[in-house]
Amino acid sequence: MKPSIPKGTRDFSSTEVARRNFIFNTIKHSFELFGFQPIETPSFENSSTLMGKYGEEGDRLIFKILNSGDYLNKANDKVLEDKDSNKLTAQISEKALRYDLTVPFARYVVQHQNDITFPFKRYQIQPVWRADKPQKGRYREFYQCDADVVGSTSLWQEVEFVKLYDAVFSKLNVKGTTIKINNRKILSGIAEVIGAKDKLIDFTVALDKLDKIGKDGVVAEMLAKGIAETAIEKVQPLFEFTGTNEDKLDALAAMLSTSEEGTKGVEELRFVVYNAQELGLETASLDLDVTLARGLNYYTGAIYEVAAPKEVKIGSIGGGGRYDDLTGIFGMKDVSGVGISFGLDRIYLVMEELGLFEDVALPKPKVLFLNFNENESLLKMKAVNELRANGVKAELYPDVAKSNNQQKKQWKYVDKRAIEFVVSDIEDNKFMLKNSETREQQLLTVNEIINIIH
Amino acid sequence: MKPSIPKGTRDFSSTEVARRNFIFNTIKHSFELFGFQPIETPSFENSSTLMGKYGEEGDRLIFKILNSGDYLNKANDKVLEDKDSNKLTAQISEKALRYDLTVPFARYVVQHQNDITFPFKRYQIQPVWRADKPQKGRYREFYQCDADVVGSTSLWQEVEFVKLYDAVFSKLNVKGTTIKINNRKILSGIAEVIGAKDKLIDFTVALDKLDKIGKDGVVAEMLAKGIAETAIEKVQPLFEFTGTNEDKLDALAAMLSTSEEGTKGVEELRFVVYNAQELGLETASLDLDVTLARGLNYYTGAIYEVAAPKEVKIGSIGGGGRYDDLTGIFGMKDVSGVGISFGLDRIYLVMEELGLFEDVALPKPKVLFLNFNENESLLKMKAVNELRANGVKAELYPDVAKSNNQQKKQWKYVDKRAIEFVVSDIEDNKFMLKNSETREQQLLTVNEIINIIH
Repeated sequence: MKPSIPKGTRDFSSTEVARRNFIFNTIKHSFELFGFQPIETPSFENSSTLMGKYGEEGDRLIFKILNSGDYLNKANDKVLEDKDSNKLTAQISEKALRYDLTVPFARYVVQHQNDITFPFKRYQIQPVWRADKPQKGRYREFYQCDADVVGSTSLWQEVEFVKLYDAVFSKLNVKGTTIKINNRKILSGIAEVIGAKDKLIDFTVALDKLDKIGKDGVVAEMLAKGIAETAIEKVQPLFEFTGTNEDKLDALAAMLSTSEEGTKGVEELRFVVYNAQELGLETASLDLDVTLARGLNYYTGAIYEVAAPKEVKIGSIGGGGRYDDLTGIFGMKDVSGVGISFGLDRIYLVMEELGLFEDVALPKPKVLFLNFNENESLLKMKAVNELRANGVKAELYPDVAKSNNQQKKQWKYVDKRAIEFVVSDIEDNKFMLKNSETREQQLLTVNEIINIIH
Repeated sequence: MKPSIPKGTRDFSSTEVARRNFIFNTIKHSFELFGFQPIETPSFENSSTLMGKYGEEGDRLIFKILNSGDYLNKANDKVLEDKDSNKLTAQISEKALRYDLTVPFARYVVQHQNDITFPFKRYQIQPVWRADKPQKGRYREFYQCDADVVGSTSLWQEVEFVKLYDAVFSKLNVKGTTIKINNRKILSGIAEVIGAKDKLIDFTVALDKLDKIGKDGVVAEMLAKGIAETAIEKVQPLFEFTGTNEDKLDALAAMLSTSEEGTKGVEELRFVVYNAQELGLETASLDLDVTLARGLNYYTGAIYEVAAPKEVKIGSIGGGGRYDDLTGIFGMKDVSGVGISFGLDRIYLVMEELGLFEDVALPKPKVLFLNFNENESLLKMKAVNELRANGVKAELYPDVAKSNNQQKKQWKYVDKRAIEFVVSDIEDNKFMLKNSETREQQLLTVNEIINIIH
């Protein structure tokens, strides 16, 4: 019986680790270039920190850790008799695995507020765990890569995040991403204008289908959802919402002129769009999308979402927005935050599909010294030693070959790991270096090998 | 009420993350230079993979994860009635947090044996969790940094690990470490010679106190532990066990000549010591220590332990050894392994005490552009943009100052984060760059700033 791992979790081979690290390092590098500082929080938090922060469904998906020792000692008899799992959990579990990076970050800010210099630009790249039903691209353990600023209401930060998305995806060579942007205040304005605040989600969901089902289809769906015909008429411009971002902003400004909040949203978005364009984007395009409403109950200003290049069919590869009261849940009021997140697993899939991993160096030796003769091992090991001191990944095959078969095994090792250079024999204290691909070989000193290989 | 984190866990500030990453990256770099490949395994494993692998005490210290949903549904009524925590655990928990990296690695090797090219040199740097009583330097969540080779019995690997320890600590600038080395077969030989296999631990523990309590004290302790006087006489040489490693090996060879296994151990150790010395060590010294017996029931050949430089009072900062049957627990027989581990947290404490973190760059901007005038913000942001494109960490203070107080706040920010360069005013499209330390300032173009700062 072969051992296995829990469903929804993954082992990563060295090739996968190398590719994932390439993405992580690129994101990290840009985060730091843009002035974000890393922090790390524990994998598990007190349950009281996490429970009730993600809604009922979220609470259910949080992995709880069983108390150590005789945990049933404190459990209530009645609860045990009733086999009431829900009630028992709080009595036998005090800790839970991190569900996202945002709540632990809020906890961190409140706990360490006296040591933090605000505005605080932090990034955090750590795994999170969710007891979700596993499926393609959805795991029970996965990484989040978040950058947030707290303690500043400046719109320049919102501009910066557009630039940051563009910088990361350009560095990853993922060209042609679309950074969709919206503003919660515009959505509120629309709700105000159509006179149906409670129908906002229905409205954006329907509007989002414009490409697929056409104007008539969208209107039919809106009517079915109970949005009044007069309301739908008021937002006519949204059905022909094309042109540049400026055109769209002008249309919105006219449409939302009666709404104070909507007008504010248009102004904010105009600032972000104008300045992002002034600064220029490398490979991404910025697209005002009024149907963008992710985390509606959470965001209060800018809303971002990044779509993969059109040739790859996959959901969003990043998202974020502004939330005016991040730390309120832990008693620290009026701290505005804005942040974005990168979806590591989806970015990995996109890069795989686009063939962008070819240049990622795999962790393997550049030169392998074959070990065919015990008497030469030390001399070869000294050469390996010198190569390493010069930064060249070199290795002596550990076991000396005592038969033809064992020699073949070493050559097979070279093949399987696709090692570029091999040293076989020694003559006059020089090493026979063979290029595995071209089959060329020459007798060289260690210094000559270093020069050739570097 | 301030929020808190579970005892034994830690938040890491950006300074701490930067310092820890400096250590991690140094270890990683050497691991890869020596031909080790990274793998990663899930944070939690099936309980059946972990339970019973670390002894009874280990089982107790493993963090168990509560099953999701109505987990009591499957629980046995009698067990609930008896409040039998031990028995209930298996019924309500199927997963557990990783306790070390070795067992998951063994599981990985067996599970992926058909995809692995042996000998397999893997490294793994990931956190582990233990429900241990927290104390200074002991945490419930901490990192392990392991490098192992499986599928080779070559003594060259044992030589390599001595070199690897030396390489890492030299790169970290932790000079004067002592790599203690021993061999399980020598310990077996000693047990054979003293005719008391079951007293081996008592024997090494007593012998280890030679420096502190002298020969008479050690002998007294051995007698008290029931080791025969005749036996103690046979190992007289160990009481004057000084000189070079070769001297010690000669003394051992004579003493253990009647033991086949002991003689084999001396030969193996002689190979490792001779070749390590031939290859040379940068800053560490290699010391044959027959009292070294860590993980006695586990190791079968070489045993390593690294002691910090003498000026720092702290336990071992690394350890490892050879185990002949790593994967046997998962049904794959006869796979020899040898590996070492680095103790991140203790290395951190050593480096802190030796003041070795001073040169570790903190993640902060090199230049801060003050934001005193709304009309200049875009121009400054464009400069920031260009600096970043040239790899310079630059930032615009996000919020524009609308009062003297707010201007002071920006200067305070520069102070608190110890930012080296500040740009205040713009004149003729040039930027006034001020060195925070020398107070010198000059009017420069962006390109001139790049040249000065690089």
